[in-house]
Amino acid sequence: KYNGKLLGGLLADGFDETACASRYSSFLYRKISLHKPSSYLISRLRSYEDLHKRCGPNTQSYNKALEQLKSGKKIMGLTDCNYIVWISFSGLGNRILSLASTFLYALLTNRVLLVDQGKDMADLFCEPFPDKSWLLPRDFPLIDQFDSLNQNSPNCHGNMLKNNITTMSPSLFLIPSFETELSKLFPEKATVFHHLGRYLFHPSNHVWGLITRYYRTYLAKADERIGIQIRIFDSRRGPFKHVMDQILSCTLKEKLLPAVDMQDSVVNPSENAKLKAVLVTSLLSGYSEDLRNMYWEHPTMTGEVVGVYQPSHEEFQQTEKQMHNRKAWAEMYLLSLTDVLVTSAWSTFGYVAQGLGGLRPWILYKTENDTARVRLYQLVKGEVDPHSELLLVTFQFSGHSIDAQISLLSTSLTNSVLDIFFELGEGWKQLLIIWTRVSFFFSLNSSS
Amino acid sequence: KYNGKLLGGLLADGFDETACASRYSSFLYRKISLHKPSSYLISRLRSYEDLHKRCGPNTQSYNKALEQLKSGKKIMGLTDCNYIVWISFSGLGNRILSLASTFLYALLTNRVLLVDQGKDMADLFCEPFPDKSWLLPRDFPLIDQFDSLNQNSPNCHGNMLKNNITTMSPSLFLIPSFETELSKLFPEKATVFHHLGRYLFHPSNHVWGLITRYYRTYLAKADERIGIQIRIFDSRRGPFKHVMDQILSCTLKEKLLPAVDMQDSVVNPSENAKLKAVLVTSLLSGYSEDLRNMYWEHPTMTGEVVGVYQPSHEEFQQTEKQMHNRKAWAEMYLLSLTDVLVTSAWSTFGYVAQGLGGLRPWILYKTENDTARVRLYQLVKGEVDPHSELLLVTFQFSGHSIDAQISLLSTSLTNSVLDIFFELGEGWKQLLIIWTRVSFFFSLNSSS
Ligand SMILES: Nc1nc2c(ncn2[C@@H]2O[C@H](COP(=O)(O)OP(=O)(O)O)[C@@H](O)[C@H]2O)c(=O)[nH]1
Ligand SMILES: Nc1nc2c(ncn2[C@@H]2O[C@H](COP(=O)(O)OP(=O)(O)O)[C@@H](O)[C@H]2O)c(=O)[nH]1
Repeated sequence: KYNGKLLGGLLADGFDETACASRYSSFLYRKISLHKPSSYLISRLRSYEDLHKRCGPNTQSYNKALEQLKSGKKIMGLTDCNYIVWISFSGLGNRILSLASTFLYALLTNRVLLVDQGKDMADLFCEPFPDKSWLLPRDFPLIDQFDSLNQNSPNCHGNMLKNNITTMSPSLFLIPSFETELSKLFPEKATVFHHLGRYLFHPSNHVWGLITRYYRTYLAKADERIGIQIRIFDSRRGPFKHVMDQILSCTLKEKLLPAVDMQDSVVNPSENAKLKAVLVTSLLSGYSEDLRNMYWEHPTMTGEVVGVYQPSHEEFQQTEKQMHNRKAWAEMYLLSLTDVLVTSAWSTFGYVAQGLGGLRPWILYKTENDTARVRLYQLVKGEVDPHSELLLVTFQFSGHSIDAQISLLSTSLTNSVLDIFFELGEGWKQLLIIWTRVSFFFSLNSSS
Repeated sequence: KYNGKLLGGLLADGFDETACASRYSSFLYRKISLHKPSSYLISRLRSYEDLHKRCGPNTQSYNKALEQLKSGKKIMGLTDCNYIVWISFSGLGNRILSLASTFLYALLTNRVLLVDQGKDMADLFCEPFPDKSWLLPRDFPLIDQFDSLNQNSPNCHGNMLKNNITTMSPSLFLIPSFETELSKLFPEKATVFHHLGRYLFHPSNHVWGLITRYYRTYLAKADERIGIQIRIFDSRRGPFKHVMDQILSCTLKEKLLPAVDMQDSVVNPSENAKLKAVLVTSLLSGYSEDLRNMYWEHPTMTGEVVGVYQPSHEEFQQTEKQMHNRKAWAEMYLLSLTDVLVTSAWSTFGYVAQGLGGLRPWILYKTENDTARVRLYQLVKGEVDPHSELLLVTFQFSGHSIDAQISLLSTSLTNSVLDIFFELGEGWKQLLIIWTRVSFFFSLNSSS
């Protein structure tokens, strides 16, 4: 029998429900996932939890490992606790994905994941593991150096190469050695982040309040919920109208939203007209206002009525502000509760939403040098050809199938390859690639 | 048995329903009015309709009257058709009130009401009378001069004093002669505009589409609907924060809106939490955004969830634009569909909403020279003392009763006296005063 509250066994039982209201009530806001976690994954998570309990902060093992790190000398008689520390940085979507990626690596290598709390990790997320925190204690010796690390300073690993800390450089080419284990953990490749994300990321009570209030107020009564995430990386305001036109023509063409009747021939919406709620997230308010006006000013061809909602429009990224990040997290989560999701390519904000929701998203695509060109497609197939080292993909665009080849060697993991892995749902590949690309880490070997 | 479709007999039967969808379906969106039209009013409306049919545009009588007007000579053998022409001007609330006022005068004096269509009267309203239009034909001789008339040119009546057109100057002091008739028509004094407004003003199909779509999309599913109309006459942006604070503290104190819990102690809204929808209308978006954020960021003390909606924010009055006026009319009407209404003093926009809805509004009060001072009160009593010519009023403010005296002679019908009549619900007085103050009119005597 499926246990909704524990997401089919993904979550451990026995947590305090008042400290983290979201953990055991998120299932009330979602359809039951089509993707069941494998029983092997479940047993590996339970044994990870045991390991974390044995080695986590302020345990005897942790304290001894710390001692060794400070003194620079090996200490005999240690247990087999190995650590990997994830360092907080960047936007929230990037943080969530890289943290999941780091956890996956920890799972594969039997390491204990510790999390740099940065400014607001504890404010945004509940503890995911029973009994012992995942937060790196604030008195950790090297903590002052974390701030100077960020994704734009490729040499920062060098700084960390002291004491017993070893940095690792796993790469795409390491993946084959994990392949057997990965396919046991995740028989459905596309679901890696779907499972790990729901396992790890429980909104804090503050954020859960934002999510549930918004959902209950604006989304719950709709017959269908459509999420549209609009992330424009271009800081110029120029492309607004063009982007809007593209979003509209794409979503209408794919019948994600009903067309409007510019002749206004229908006056009264019919008694049992379906109500659709469109949740728009964007840093700007213009897109949702245009959409809301369109569905106010004109009836739809289908007789449906369409409400358009946008929780915030923060105008620009402000990762240092507490409420800003709470809202960003709430919005990602709300997007994940929709029935149909349209996200922007290249945005981890949207990836997190689709991953948590287990949704197959429609992607608003932008080309590298021209943010104004937006189109909607769905990737349907993709394989790495081991002989040619080519990534062979097929995507569908307005009913047409298009094949493409991308060289893995020459592009050396550019954003676009990362992007394609995402869209292919090549879950574990995508996660391991992210980990090597955007997260800073080191491990602390207490035995050896 | 109460006939909902005909509003208890107020409306005549037999109109074409497709030409004006609102006429016979408005009752679906409102509770049954607590105020029944008197059977005397109903019979007078039916005989007005007969008169209008006999004398309206392009009838034999109308053509003869026109002939007389053009030639300047009396023509023998005319019927007893007398006309009063209302001239389109100003904002929509002012138009609606002055038109109702002019119709009341027509009813009292057995005149036929004709309406200058201006730019958009036909676009906004259905025909209210069966068979014959209320619109003044565009070939009416003096129509070119209407444009030069407006409420700020007090001498304009002079221009009209030619041919057979007689201008009238009824004033407050005329009222006693109508008093018997008025109390037969409207035994409940406060309901004059409630009845006449619902009788005369049926949104055109375009506007009805705006109303019903908005209602169905954003308001229908709420357990309670609260309307807040915020009209700030000060063009400076200064008072924003102060006005917001006042609106909040007033509506919370009077328990029109639930207070929020700044400690965020409640996380999950309860399963059967009541849903309140707040409809804000304002030229600016700031007030509703602040309110919406407040109820998103914090739970309410009562456990209710509160959604905040604002259909448009046009930034400034743009009476010349067609869609602008359609939206203004739709918003007035939507306000009239709420269960609890807070309106701004001095604004006919809000008066129309409360009148159509038959609501007893809470008024956001501003003093004449200081738009920043806003408070909320309800007038509970008011009488004209015939000996002293004083208006004696009692109003309630935060639980206290306050008595005040206002001299009718010295203030000679300033806005504030007008305002007080409104709030007292002294319906017929208020309407006749408006008529003399803000509407331009003349009558066309075809007999004499
Ligand atoms: N609230 C909110 N914040 C956004 C939105 N889009 C971008 N942001 C902010 O910008 C950051 C973007 O960084 P990230 O989440 O890593 O996503 P990415 O840059 O799109 O991959 C978010 O974390 C937010 O702080 C949005 O739609 N809503
Ligand atoms: N759509 C909309 N228009 C408004 C609002 N407040 C004022 N206006 C515009 O300003 C005009 C105000 O004139 P009027 O309706 O006569 O009301 P008053 O000036 O408040 O007595 C309206 O007719 C609208 O054109 C509002 O809340 N919504």
